[in-house]
Amino acid sequence: MTIPPAFLTSLLYRYNKPTEQSKPHVTLTFAQSLDAKIAGRGGKQLTLSGKESMVMTHWMRTMHDGILIGIGTALNDDPQLNTRLLPYRDPDPSANGHNNPYNIPRPIILDTKLRLSPHCKLLKNYTEGKGRRPWLICTEPSETSEKTEWLARRDTLDNAGARIVVLQIGHDTEGDQICLEILNLSQISMSSSDYLPIPLVLQTIHQLGISSVMVEGGAQVIRSFLSQNAVRSATSLVNTVIITIAPIFVGEDGVSYNAESGPSSVYKHASTAMFGQDTIVGLIPAYPNQDAP
Amino acid sequence: MTIPPAFLTSLLYRYNKPTEQSKPHVTLTFAQSLDAKIAGRGGKQLTLSGKESMVMTHWMRTMHDGILIGIGTALNDDPQLNTRLLPYRDPDPSANGHNNPYNIPRPIILDTKLRLSPHCKLLKNYTEGKGRRPWLICTEPSETSEKTEWLARRDTLDNAGARIVVLQIGHDTEGDQICLEILNLSQISMSSSDYLPIPLVLQTIHQLGISSVMVEGGAQVIRSFLSQNAVRSATSLVNTVIITIAPIFVGEDGVSYNAESGPSSVYKHASTAMFGQDTIVGLIPAYPNQDAP
Repeated sequence: MTIPPAFLTSLLYRYNKPTEQSKPHVTLTFAQSLDAKIAGRGGKQLTLSGKESMVMTHWMRTMHDGILIGIGTALNDDPQLNTRLLPYRDPDPSANGHNNPYNIPRPIILDTKLRLSPHCKLLKNYTEGKGRRPWLICTEPSETSEKTEWLARRDTLDNAGARIVVLQIGHDTEGDQICLEILNLSQISMSSSDYLPIPLVLQTIHQLGISSVMVEGGAQVIRSFLSQNAVRSATSLVNTVIITIAPIFVGEDGVSYNAESGPSSVYKHASTAMFGQDTIVGLIPAYPNQDAP
Repeated sequence: MTIPPAFLTSLLYRYNKPTEQSKPHVTLTFAQSLDAKIAGRGGKQLTLSGKESMVMTHWMRTMHDGILIGIGTALNDDPQLNTRLLPYRDPDPSANGHNNPYNIPRPIILDTKLRLSPHCKLLKNYTEGKGRRPWLICTEPSETSEKTEWLARRDTLDNAGARIVVLQIGHDTEGDQICLEILNLSQISMSSSDYLPIPLVLQTIHQLGISSVMVEGGAQVIRSFLSQNAVRSATSLVNTVIITIAPIFVGEDGVSYNAESGPSSVYKHASTAMFGQDTIVGLIPAYPNQDAP
């Protein structure tokens, strides 16, 4: 029996007791350099984490139902989002429906325009029985001229094994009214067709059975999740932020998440630990269950 | 008898044995947020470090001959650069020439245009016998029209207690030829009248008796010291980089040092320690005594 490090279980669960709510437990996690870069020039993938903190990240994955990334990261890195660095043990397909010895979370990709490659590793692993079926979160294009191409991409990705989840924005149904009320969606701008409204994404995947999600990046997704906090007056959509800091400089050509300015009191320090040469810092909302004072 | 933490002595001296050379031992040190900001909007001073890492910084000061900052930091923060957070002990003026119980380093300010206020705390502390005489490193203006005002400022600051150190740039003397040869100054751009050539600054203060210097910021000074490394093909002017990381986000309005892109192999990790909620990361040059491979 192998178990995740005590630091991690403590960080994820000590401070965040499960409660009845309409969104999943959200862990925002990413690796960065000292100068707060998460990727190289033009989004190029960098190996920032050392072996020890990579293992920690894989442990963290086993503890979530879903793992959420942006389409930029999916295209740049072609990630597998699995738990291959953990200690060997026999797979038990009957336990979790795939040939992976540990629980691996469902890949969830924010892909407004359905740009994912049908040949990506996530779809390949799914069709080979080595991973869960990926979900693509998107919206239908509002322009009629874009619809034919969008439908073709949808069919291609559906045939390749993806589940297409179309967000329902702006429909005047009872469900959406509840959603608006609970998540205060009226504060969220929907003007940009490139970005999905995070509260609605969380509500939707929660309705589809995801009760905990690990958000891994990239830059725009991290920025969006951090900025929701500023928008929403210090009541947080994120339950835990876990940052791995590698002791290197990437330089000004690298990609940063550029956290928006906001009250520095949105998060407070929970815990820090060293894994190899890396430092892992955990933060939790300063006011998890109430508005800011 | 109070002694500095073992972590610090180890970091400063284990990896960097004193050698015969023409420049001081350089420790570059600063505090930053998770998103790599060292100050707030417009350079506003932020209290990033917690109590424990501030004490560490004051210990570090006792271990250097000089402490170097830029004029921006001097004007924004009006710092004292002393060791007031260390445990109480009786002052021994006969030991170090001032009424401070510990060795405090000499303040050295990069102040090209002599903008320091004659009423700043550093000059006040010096005239009251509570600190060493500050040195201002500058250059004579090349424009004749600026000279009268510059001379007036020089006299004012000299009367207020500062020592004015005028850098000799471009004189064709034997000393400068040696300096050019040793430090490869031909690679350093001197086109900007706002920035002083770091190798010449280091050579000059070394000739004036400073054999170790702690560089504390701000953003432009940090950037300059980090960038010298990139310019000089991975042979470093900096012997140790010590970064305090506070577990908060400042946001995109904050000031970063924006490290230039360079080979990430310029520095390697030496040591990490936790002090209160802060993490202190120590780096040393990957190739301290030779060119990059």
